[in-house]
Amino acid sequence: MTRDLGFAQLDLDRERRQGLAEIVYGPGKTPAQVVAIVRELLAHNTGPVLVTRVEPADAAAVLAEVPGGTHHPDARLLVWRPALAREFAVVVVTAGTADGPVAAEAAGVATAIGLGVTRVSDVGVAGLHRLLARLEVLRAADCVIVVAGMEAALASTVGGLVAVPVIAVPTSTGYGAAFEGVTALLGMLSSCAAGLTVVNIDSGFAAALAAHRMAR
Amino acid sequence: MTRDLGFAQLDLDRERRQGLAEIVYGPGKTPAQVVAIVRELLAHNTGPVLVTRVEPADAAAVLAEVPGGTHHPDARLLVWRPALAREFAVVVVTAGTADGPVAAEAAGVATAIGLGVTRVSDVGVAGLHRLLARLEVLRAADCVIVVAGMEAALASTVGGLVAVPVIAVPTSTGYGAAFEGVTALLGMLSSCAAGLTVVNIDSGFAAALAAHRMAR
Amino acid sequence: MTRDLGFAQLDLDRERRQGLAEIVYGPGKTPAQVVAIVRELLAHNTGPVLVTRVEPADAAAVLAEVPGGTHHPDARLLVWRPALAREFAVVVVTAGTADGPVAAEAAGVATAIGLGVTRVSDVGVAGLHRLLARLEVLRAADCVIVVAGMEAALASTVGGLVAVPVIAVPTSTGYGAAFEGVTALLGMLSSCAAGLTVVNIDSGFAAALAAHRMAR
Amino acid sequence: MTRDLGFAQLDLDRERRQGLAEIVYGPGKTPAQVVAIVRELLAHNTGPVLVTRVEPADAAAVLAEVPGGTHHPDARLLVWRPALAREFAVVVVTAGTADGPVAAEAAGVATAIGLGVTRVSDVGVAGLHRLLARLEVLRAADCVIVVAGMEAALASTVGGLVAVPVIAVPTSTGYGAAFEGVTALLGMLSSCAAGLTVVNIDSGFAAALAAHRMAR
Amino acid sequence: MTRDLGFAQLDLDRERRQGLAEIVYGPGKTPAQVVAIVRELLAHNTGPVLVTRVEPADAAAVLAEVPGGTHHPDARLLVWRPALAREFAVVVVTAGTADGPVAAEAAGVATAIGLGVTRVSDVGVAGLHRLLARLEVLRAADCVIVVAGMEAALASTVGGLVAVPVIAVPTSTGYGAAFEGVTALLGMLSSCAAGLTVVNIDSGFAAALAAHRMAR
Amino acid sequence: MTRDLGFAQLDLDRERRQGLAEIVYGPGKTPAQVVAIVRELLAHNTGPVLVTRVEPADAAAVLAEVPGGTHHPDARLLVWRPALAREFAVVVVTAGTADGPVAAEAAGVATAIGLGVTRVSDVGVAGLHRLLARLEVLRAADCVIVVAGMEAALASTVGGLVAVPVIAVPTSTGYGAAFEGVTALLGMLSSCAAGLTVVNIDSGFAAALAAHRMAR
Amino acid sequence: MTRDLGFAQLDLDRERRQGLAEIVYGPGKTPAQVVAIVRELLAHNTGPVLVTRVEPADAAAVLAEVPGGTHHPDARLLVWRPALAREFAVVVVTAGTADGPVAAEAAGVATAIGLGVTRVSDVGVAGLHRLLARLEVLRAADCVIVVAGMEAALASTVGGLVAVPVIAVPTSTGYGAAFEGVTALLGMLSSCAAGLTVVNIDSGFAAALAAHRMAR
Amino acid sequence: MTRDLGFAQLDLDRERRQGLAEIVYGPGKTPAQVVAIVRELLAHNTGPVLVTRVEPADAAAVLAEVPGGTHHPDARLLVWRPALAREFAVVVVTAGTADGPVAAEAAGVATAIGLGVTRVSDVGVAGLHRLLARLEVLRAADCVIVVAGMEAALASTVGGLVAVPVIAVPTSTGYGAAFEGVTALLGMLSSCAAGLTVVNIDSGFAAALAAHRMAR
Repeated sequence: MTRDLGFAQLDLDRERRQGLAEIVYGPGKTPAQVVAIVRELLAHNTGPVLVTRVEPADAAAVLAEVPGGTHHPDARLLVWRPALAREFAVVVVTAGTADGPVAAEAAGVATAIGLGVTRVSDVGVAGLHRLLARLEVLRAADCVIVVAGMEAALASTVGGLVAVPVIAVPTSTGYGAAFEGVTALLGMLSSCAAGLTVVNIDSGFAAALAAHRMAR
Repeated sequence: MTRDLGFAQLDLDRERRQGLAEIVYGPGKTPAQVVAIVRELLAHNTGPVLVTRVEPADAAAVLAEVPGGTHHPDARLLVWRPALAREFAVVVVTAGTADGPVAAEAAGVATAIGLGVTRVSDVGVAGLHRLLARLEVLRAADCVIVVAGMEAALASTVGGLVAVPVIAVPTSTGYGAAFEGVTALLGMLSSCAAGLTVVNIDSGFAAALAAHRMAR
Repeated sequence: MTRDLGFAQLDLDRERRQGLAEIVYGPGKTPAQVVAIVRELLAHNTGPVLVTRVEPADAAAVLAEVPGGTHHPDARLLVWRPALAREFAVVVVTAGTADGPVAAEAAGVATAIGLGVTRVSDVGVAGLHRLLARLEVLRAADCVIVVAGMEAALASTVGGLVAVPVIAVPTSTGYGAAFEGVTALLGMLSSCAAGLTVVNIDSGFAAALAAHRMAR
Repeated sequence: MTRDLGFAQLDLDRERRQGLAEIVYGPGKTPAQVVAIVRELLAHNTGPVLVTRVEPADAAAVLAEVPGGTHHPDARLLVWRPALAREFAVVVVTAGTADGPVAAEAAGVATAIGLGVTRVSDVGVAGLHRLLARLEVLRAADCVIVVAGMEAALASTVGGLVAVPVIAVPTSTGYGAAFEGVTALLGMLSSCAAGLTVVNIDSGFAAALAAHRMAR
Repeated sequence: MTRDLGFAQLDLDRERRQGLAEIVYGPGKTPAQVVAIVRELLAHNTGPVLVTRVEPADAAAVLAEVPGGTHHPDARLLVWRPALAREFAVVVVTAGTADGPVAAEAAGVATAIGLGVTRVSDVGVAGLHRLLARLEVLRAADCVIVVAGMEAALASTVGGLVAVPVIAVPTSTGYGAAFEGVTALLGMLSSCAAGLTVVNIDSGFAAALAAHRMAR
Repeated sequence: MTRDLGFAQLDLDRERRQGLAEIVYGPGKTPAQVVAIVRELLAHNTGPVLVTRVEPADAAAVLAEVPGGTHHPDARLLVWRPALAREFAVVVVTAGTADGPVAAEAAGVATAIGLGVTRVSDVGVAGLHRLLARLEVLRAADCVIVVAGMEAALASTVGGLVAVPVIAVPTSTGYGAAFEGVTALLGMLSSCAAGLTVVNIDSGFAAALAAHRMAR
Repeated sequence: MTRDLGFAQLDLDRERRQGLAEIVYGPGKTPAQVVAIVRELLAHNTGPVLVTRVEPADAAAVLAEVPGGTHHPDARLLVWRPALAREFAVVVVTAGTADGPVAAEAAGVATAIGLGVTRVSDVGVAGLHRLLARLEVLRAADCVIVVAGMEAALASTVGGLVAVPVIAVPTSTGYGAAFEGVTALLGMLSSCAAGLTVVNIDSGFAAALAAHRMAR
Repeated sequence: MTRDLGFAQLDLDRERRQGLAEIVYGPGKTPAQVVAIVRELLAHNTGPVLVTRVEPADAAAVLAEVPGGTHHPDARLLVWRPALAREFAVVVVTAGTADGPVAAEAAGVATAIGLGVTRVSDVGVAGLHRLLARLEVLRAADCVIVVAGMEAALASTVGGLVAVPVIAVPTSTGYGAAFEGVTALLGMLSSCAAGLTVVNIDSGFAAALAAHRMAR
């Protein structure tokens, strides 16, 4: 169940255990290492294989060696064998345009692993009518992922408007007292809206995987 | 939809909007205030009504005025009109005995709002065989709530073993570098197990509400 | 312009310089010290004289020595010679009932120094309709003071709805990741609503004084 | 009231609601995105349109596409249709020469939105006579913006000398224990001068907008 | 040179090495332990012997066993054999009345070890004229100890006005963002006035000892 | 191998696996719970059984139910079946008298589990000769435990003088910038003496267990 | 015993005192300075001489001047006169591939100073079976070095499985709430596995030296 | 007494008031600005004029415009009209070679303003004999400046050995838990050696100025 590549021990059992093969975190790995890992995962699993946070040059190098994949540059993502969409609707909401890359990662991963994704962008509470105009979309979701930096007030506001699970992703957007996402993180954890859950700063990936666990 | 009690604006619409009436946070409210709120909630909703973090003396004072409720001292909880159990199995796991009160709050609230709850206690990773012996129980859950303080390694370990949603609750257990739950919180947010979500320190309540959102 | 009481140097010039005598901070002073200071301020100024954060027993002791004052226990305030109300409307808004004591201090000080005060309580964003129902009141203000703890999302939301100055007061409400008001403070400073200003944690007093500076 | 540009939802209602169109934050947006936003704002509003924190090369690229604007490199600002000066006098004071860029942003934005601005530079408390020599200027203001880093003692000193609103802007000036502006921020929030208000670190923009709210 | 008391190793050589016997820190020691240490110090040294931060009841218990000492309750100090005053003038300045106990410790220790002490109280920068009225006293000092909490702006202001050494003592005065003296500490370390030095929070004792080192 | 007590899962296998039964952490357990755990541990293991951080009243209550144990009040420790001393010499060194209780815990646990313990007290670097006078004792050790608070300079100094393992225990001694042991902790981790290792703040227990691992 | 090189005072006595010459920390030293130090150490000692954290270009420059050494690029290490392997088995375990460089430093230094080293890589708890498959290797060690970042749950898990000393090395692996290794550090210090010890973030060097002290 | 250069208000009175003209902090100023300031200071004062933290290229540019000065690259210092040495002996001590640049700044500034400077380098406590061998030098000083990073144990050790003022300068030397000098700073503030004073991280400049205040 474990494949020893020397620099890595691949957990080939994960697809059976959790319904999804190990997803490869790109930073700190050479293209050659990524190629070796992806080949093993494709060979020993049947579902989607993903690499996250991949730089454009590395993406090209890997795809040249392992054809059949797709590069999603906005989401910094490589995908082989994307899953068919299941009936589980995820809405990914952002507070501002600067939260876009994290939302793209969340949406890209969620789509690749078979969730249905809708995006609602730039509806922060400074102009509340923008959010209220999208209430129908939000309330039709099975799960809402809120991506917000700075003070992240959007998470609490959405949490009070919908009944489904809300996964809050703090982003490192902002400066000064935003402290690289720490303020957003603490605000989401202290939310007055009951039953929100929170993942790591800038981790669109973690939010998508949390939605995947719910969709089973 | 809002009931003005002077000291509070009751959101009487919440049961319709989110499937559950507002849950009353006890600290900082007098028994008289709690009584007034509970009466309104009972009158204008049809489902369960709860008060959390209630002291024994206050619980008795409130129940004397609003009969028909039950006091769960371990969970520091008052409950009126508990919901019937639905088919959604929550397992509440703790790392050590000191995590008990937070787990009791999670389990108590979850039970009162209609989730099926099983508890697994004191299975921290210092004696890994204790956890592995309970794998069947964990894998039968629809959702696992992991309650752990200190370094909270149990959350990552459970996250790697089950496929369902894992809600991690850091506790203020421990001393020194445990920093009143901050170390557990940061560890859970940085977990190597993909797709964990996290709630506020010591908030068994938030974990139960997060499970409730999933159970809809 | 300075009165030397040994333990204190009273700045008797302040009323002339800033339109308001020095306001006495109660904690750490004996009733006898407060009495001595209040007598000097009453003798050498013509406007209101206030003592903040005063305990009930100390309030009674001081009033017995310096009659003519009023004790406002909710606001923990002693007031002599309150000012006549000017045409400057301050609305003090809170997110939850636990923010009440800080709002009472803001409202009590503001009233005593001659501002017109309206209170709007318990309109946090978890039930957004409560806030939207009070929009007319908020938009009629010359200045809004938002008092909120936990993630303090209310401040940004109000900041986006009104055009007048918004003074945000973080409170130490909440637990765990609320960190005694630090999370609310950082969130208010990082607000996406432009032009909010912020004062110290739990300082209803500072917010009232900031409004006083605007009302000149 | 909302214009959907795909990457952004423009709040076209803000000028009506708050007397000023949305101000564009430059970092993280491509020149093409800035051009699209500015064109919409110019078309659907009648007042000033601003872009903050813009790099010189980007400024040139945007102005080539949207003529009629002016680039203020010291303030890192682009301005179209500046407002006529109203009778509201803002004095922007700095503690040292290193605080200059933040003060330039405050002064540039304030001027563009119609406030009357005077600058007083480099009057930190290490040479107190420099500040005392400018007292007349400070006391003639309707509002004083104090821009200071390091220990930011200038804010408290000015706060004690003038009766009008004081908006304190902490800067990231200094090294070591200045902690990138955190020390200045905390010092301003803890000021012994009553009624100061504080905005985010390095945010000359927020101070100007706060003054704008007061000037209505 | 070392006296072994079991629970403590007395450094009897310190008076010879540094001109002053070890000063006993009271908290955490029983009166019996203090008595044993004081007796040894009196027997094997010739100069002053001091105990700091001593509670009134403990002070009485110790003096009953070791007569000849004096209790200074304001300074929480016990002193035997105070030194004759030397020609070294220390001025201890405070920003507010709440800084009094720390200043009393600094002044009490300094006096007991032979320095000439003058006190200037409650001259914080919110009323600058109070400080400027005392300039002659400050400029006549050989060393100035500035005791201040909150934002501690007084330290920088004094540092710019005098040419002699300035020892800054941050105090835990204030609340919220004053963070128990941390804000004052950081502000003093980041002072714009060149050549200030800083000691631990609330340590009047350390400031007096630093002055003693200068007086040799 | 696991004994289910309901509130606890006893890891009865630990003595076989690690040479020492689970040691009971007292706080948060009732005397009845401690009694139940101790009886199980005594019944299913053959070596020493310990309870740490036990209050005097609880100690008496437990010993009344489980005779044969000894209470060491200085070390806040209960011990049954202490191990015979092996040939492994631990020296426990403290910087000051206030570090005594933590050192007592380290020494008490180490003795009970069969290590040979010598104590050297109050040899902080402010009087370096006290430490140098004990060099022979330190150099005869198989392992040195350094217990120090405040700046914890003793750990680095000892680390440079001996060749054997040095286990550094930071203590919460001191005030202000000592930050309840955090400063000592960080100083020990950043030590210039190579190969020191560090345990949690105030954890004499952890140091003794670390020595036990070395003694095997 | 001390060699004065002007820019450095070489402690030539250390090999005699601690069984190992001073190990040279590369950063901040010019190749010429490193050459001078290494020559002195080779001349006045008989055992291994090492330089850590050396850049490839600097390594080549130094080796050109001081032949006979070996460059280990993975471990960023220069070694002259490596020690013969003694009978002390160290196992260096990592949680993920990103922890590799720190583990390489630990293993490289340990090997060069004469310890027997085995490496086990990429066995983090997200796939627990990978760790359990290597239990035999871990239990055969005299000392285990656990290298882990993020939440570092591996350290506690290993600590509960083996009886020998466990030296935990936190790494700066991860992002967001991993806080550059601080979360791993705090988690290791708060571990529920008794008797773990911890060294500085990313310090494979310190772990190897700690093992060396144990091996004597 | 103030010279208005537009971008700066020169405090020309400072030499009269404090015995030393304003010292110019280089970073953030253009060579042209430095030239303008230096010319004014040379024209209106009679003593030394200094620029600190100056880059080599800027130093050359300034000296080309304002001849007669000297560039000290190690100390990153420009000096015109250095003062004659007075009878005040400063010893600048470092713990390690990496502390060199900060010590060079302290020594360079102190020499330029007329203090007698001796340097003692690389005598950290890991090899205590190096420090003890220099005791005569240290005890002959009128003031000792201790420059140390990491855990900064050298400051306490020196503080216990000498009777004269000790000015402690924390440096940003080290990595991980050294936290860019914060650990050294906190350690020095918490020192067990009585009467140490501390300046900002890496501020050799502040230490020299503090010595200058003592030398008057």
